Amino acid sequence: MPTYQAPLKDFRFVLNDLIQLDNYTNLPGFQDATRDTLDAILEEGAKFVQEVVQPINQVGDHEGCSWKNGEVTTPKGFKEAYAKYVEGGWSGLTAEPDFGGQGLPHIVGFVMSEMMTAANMAFAMYPGLSHGAYEAILKHGTDEQKKTYLPKLVEGTWTGTMNLTEPHCGTDLGLMRTKAEPQGDGSYSISGTKIFISAGEHDMAENIIHLVLAKIPGGPSGIKGVSLFIVPKFLVNADGSLGERNPVTCGSIEHKMGIHGNSTCVLNYDGAKGWLIGEEHKGMRAMFTMMNAARLGVGIQGLGVADVAFQNGAAYAKERLQMRSISGVKAPDKPADPIIVHPDVRRMLMQAKAFTEGARALALETGLKLDFAHRHPDPATRRECEDFVALITPMLKAYLTDMGYETATNAQQMLGGHGYIREWGMEQFVRDARIAMIYEGANGVQALDLVGRKLPEGMGRLLRSFFHPLDRFIQENMADPKFAKDYVMPLAKAFARLQQATAFIGEAGLKNADEAGAASSDYLKMFALVAMGQVWARSAKVAQEKLAQGAEDKAFYEAKLVTGRFFMERMLPETSGLLSKIQAGGESMMALPAEAF
Amino acid sequence: MPTYQAPLKDFRFVLNDLIQLDNYTNLPGFQDATRDTLDAILEEGAKFVQEVVQPINQVGDHEGCSWKNGEVTTPKGFKEAYAKYVEGGWSGLTAEPDFGGQGLPHIVGFVMSEMMTAANMAFAMYPGLSHGAYEAILKHGTDEQKKTYLPKLVEGTWTGTMNLTEPHCGTDLGLMRTKAEPQGDGSYSISGTKIFISAGEHDMAENIIHLVLAKIPGGPSGIKGVSLFIVPKFLVNADGSLGERNPVTCGSIEHKMGIHGNSTCVLNYDGAKGWLIGEEHKGMRAMFTMMNAARLGVGIQGLGVADVAFQNGAAYAKERLQMRSISGVKAPDKPADPIIVHPDVRRMLMQAKAFTEGARALALETGLKLDFAHRHPDPATRRECEDFVALITPMLKAYLTDMGYETATNAQQMLGGHGYIREWGMEQFVRDARIAMIYEGANGVQALDLVGRKLPEGMGRLLRSFFHPLDRFIQENMADPKFAKDYVMPLAKAFARLQQATAFIGEAGLKNADEAGAASSDYLKMFALVAMGQVWARSAKVAQEKLAQGAEDKAFYEAKLVTGRFFMERMLPETSGLLSKIQAGGESMMALPAEAF
Repeated sequence: MPTYQAPLKDFRFVLNDLIQLDNYTNLPGFQDATRDTLDAILEEGAKFVQEVVQPINQVGDHEGCSWKNGEVTTPKGFKEAYAKYVEGGWSGLTAEPDFGGQGLPHIVGFVMSEMMTAANMAFAMYPGLSHGAYEAILKHGTDEQKKTYLPKLVEGTWTGTMNLTEPHCGTDLGLMRTKAEPQGDGSYSISGTKIFISAGEHDMAENIIHLVLAKIPGGPSGIKGVSLFIVPKFLVNADGSLGERNPVTCGSIEHKMGIHGNSTCVLNYDGAKGWLIGEEHKGMRAMFTMMNAARLGVGIQGLGVADVAFQNGAAYAKERLQMRSISGVKAPDKPADPIIVHPDVRRMLMQAKAFTEGARALALETGLKLDFAHRHPDPATRRECEDFVALITPMLKAYLTDMGYETATNAQQMLGGHGYIREWGMEQFVRDARIAMIYEGANGVQALDLVGRKLPEGMGRLLRSFFHPLDRFIQENMADPKFAKDYVMPLAKAFARLQQATAFIGEAGLKNADEAGAASSDYLKMFALVAMGQVWARSAKVAQEKLAQGAEDKAFYEAKLVTGRFFMERMLPETSGLLSKIQAGGESMMALPAEAF
Repeated sequence: MPTYQAPLKDFRFVLNDLIQLDNYTNLPGFQDATRDTLDAILEEGAKFVQEVVQPINQVGDHEGCSWKNGEVTTPKGFKEAYAKYVEGGWSGLTAEPDFGGQGLPHIVGFVMSEMMTAANMAFAMYPGLSHGAYEAILKHGTDEQKKTYLPKLVEGTWTGTMNLTEPHCGTDLGLMRTKAEPQGDGSYSISGTKIFISAGEHDMAENIIHLVLAKIPGGPSGIKGVSLFIVPKFLVNADGSLGERNPVTCGSIEHKMGIHGNSTCVLNYDGAKGWLIGEEHKGMRAMFTMMNAARLGVGIQGLGVADVAFQNGAAYAKERLQMRSISGVKAPDKPADPIIVHPDVRRMLMQAKAFTEGARALALETGLKLDFAHRHPDPATRRECEDFVALITPMLKAYLTDMGYETATNAQQMLGGHGYIREWGMEQFVRDARIAMIYEGANGVQALDLVGRKLPEGMGRLLRSFFHPLDRFIQENMADPKFAKDYVMPLAKAFARLQQATAFIGEAGLKNADEAGAASSDYLKMFALVAMGQVWARSAKVAQEKLAQGAEDKAFYEAKLVTGRFFMERMLPETSGLLSKIQAGGESMMALPAEAF
């Protein structure tokens, strides 16, 4: 059975050494993010996920959720674990103190999300979705709505959902058919069918607050006529107690490839009572608040699953004896060498290590900028950080989930035939990781968001939030020849390729939008590799400084240097093939008629 | 529910236009491989797999095999379908007429394998494994053994298995513990436990012929002391009738990620009666006969699953309406455009098309050379073809299965959320495809086979069987500037990279064997891309000639030209990143101590 150890040492490296979070305790909301508080949260969080959440991961997969007459039963142990989650106050970690939260920075929430997902992705999705509903109501709700719904969502006794997809539309929400008829009393009557609603019905919370996109009849057609509504499972009385059952029912749950422990519901709205959130026909704006947060969360899912799969692959590789090393016997006292001595096993392990550690640094850096975007006193810094987050969000979503799947697949591969067998638990990681590439905007949609929306925005303003600091870093770090050779030069080369690709897309895309689309996925990957390259170069720099200062944990910092070098030598060069592909243009991609397929 | 249409047009293109099989009807064994016979087999085979085998693919996955008291029940419909397979004579397609086969060339078997796997991979494995047992007995068995076992295996009323793996050893068979004690009467008593035995027990055949690796006590230690035995489930009487039940029992079946319709058995040998096949302690030699054939077969599994997944992804992409094309509305009469208009969907479709068609050509070319290696009258040609097959086998196994999984994953991606839901059937393709990267030698083992065994063999003699003809092709096709620019130049560039990588490995590997290991997987991929490049360039040349000759199916040949160009522009350039990775060497890959993971 797989195990999970929260990577506390690496969290501390990123938070304390790389980001140096305690430099910012003067910022509003950061007062409590001291090293001691963070340490306590890390320790307690790790303990909670390891002891409570991870042990029910495999049973959640094997048992799955079950549906009967509209009611959903979660797998054995889920209800109890969720009660402990609420009891421990984990639900309100980053929520506003006004509504009962602890008000900690988002970056702390990112750490907890990674641990929760690594321990049990299907379970972690229940509170994850509540958080999205909380954000949307916080930003777009009336004071009354906030007062009614937020304290319970923050407490965790109620959970939330996002209702976008319908059978005939997912990406293209303008086609949606769910209707919201105004009732004259400020409420609306919601009718229609929503599908793929994660955590749409379950037995762990007293109430479920559905955030639902629907069209008010007579409004603009397409996406411009979509509004967002709050539709609680149980209506809430004026005194906050639960009232009558709203006619929103779970018609069935899906049988899926993975995340069996999470209920994926068909929800039927039969004249359910709902209340508008935000303005009429401006539902997409509010939904994007949830979606952007959700996309970052999904990226972290990719990272979390990759890490737990990597940990279990590595444990097996150190134990399993098979063949002798081709460069000479390594364990003469044993009948064979542990497979970790074999270069191709090592290749997969190093790739997993370089990916998870780099992705963790990149995700947490993005978390910090997200906090700055909300809380920094300087408006220019706020704007720059907002730009950075907007730019990096599609990359975190798509690259981290693509690589999460690849890393889980590689970790499964290390176990050979055993990796294919259910009881070993490795194949669950692959099946669970797979969904993250699909939901919250399929990865191809992320790539289009990057080239079609983020690149052109403000004449490349978003780009500058990434390019300029990177340019500076490269300029400033050429002096040390060894460091420059190992880290800065490879990064500078890849960055030059990225700039070439950016120029190509700008030019070709102006003439024919399909050219930008044809380049988009390769470009996103290339950009993400460069973004990973910059956090790796900076991580290496910090590690080198720590070693020079005679830091205690020498082996840890030395491993950072080696892993960073591995990334530069063995992962970043992929940018060269990607550039060639992009520069070849989209003609051969688009030339065939549909009948040719 | 997914469907499957055997790609008859493309089979005909490869067999008739590219390979021109009817040029070889003068060769022994090829007499019956006329265009008319092949056409009849293609038509009948397609009909059989589409009508009998494919319809039980999804039920096979959902129901799986079940085990009770040592007996295995296959999913609903499997037994009946297998009976029809036997009845139709499909089992003996390429087997020797002496034992009841039709004696057709291997290349015809390759075509049938692809269709069978695409229709139902789990089902196709039952006869697939029989074929391996047939080959081993044919090549290494005594006349008596051939007479006893082959006719029934060829007929299909008995099936076969390969027993290699034990709980503590898979790749490293030298560690095996299963024992074979000589009984003085020419038989051996076999005791031990074998795991992961595909088709090890089931209800579709009258008898199961297990080919089992075991150690004769007192023999050499390690892999040099392994012998191969025939162990029938039911002993065979002198008159050919079935005798007593041999004590080889199925202790349980595995619960796996996929191929649920195939029984993966733990087999317990409790003093089962077995007969040596081939020489004592030379079991690996005989086993490799089966293994090499099996590896080619597994490569074809990757191709088959990729093709069926691609077909269903493409069908969805043509139907599903979602968003408008970014280069302008394409279906103004519909509420949205079919998603095939979106470049990123098209990217995945084109990649699937370029992979499946290229892999089909490469696999069938290898099939032809395999036939030549056995049947060509000229010894030099036989030798050269044998070299080619030996060289290309690890690539077909690893690259086709890696890409099979990637293609199935991409096809699943085209369906968005629906792709993750069981009833749509796309996720089954991904789960089924996954095993092919693992069994018959994990793909990392294939890469090591390529660099460690195939490259150095005969001072690069195997390499020359590929490099020389490719060199000639490039020289001969530079004259037409358009063709050279589109196909020959990109191929020549990639080939130059492959030669650089080969030189690098030769040199670095001599100093440190781990360097060859560190390069192996990237090198295999690079080599396979070049091998695909050469079949694509040749396919494009043939298509161009056909168009110049005014061939009827213009659209088909034009699509070949475009798809070939797509391969050159959008897939082959990956070789540049791979070369950089290889040339970076293995130092950073191998530097960390095991404790760092």
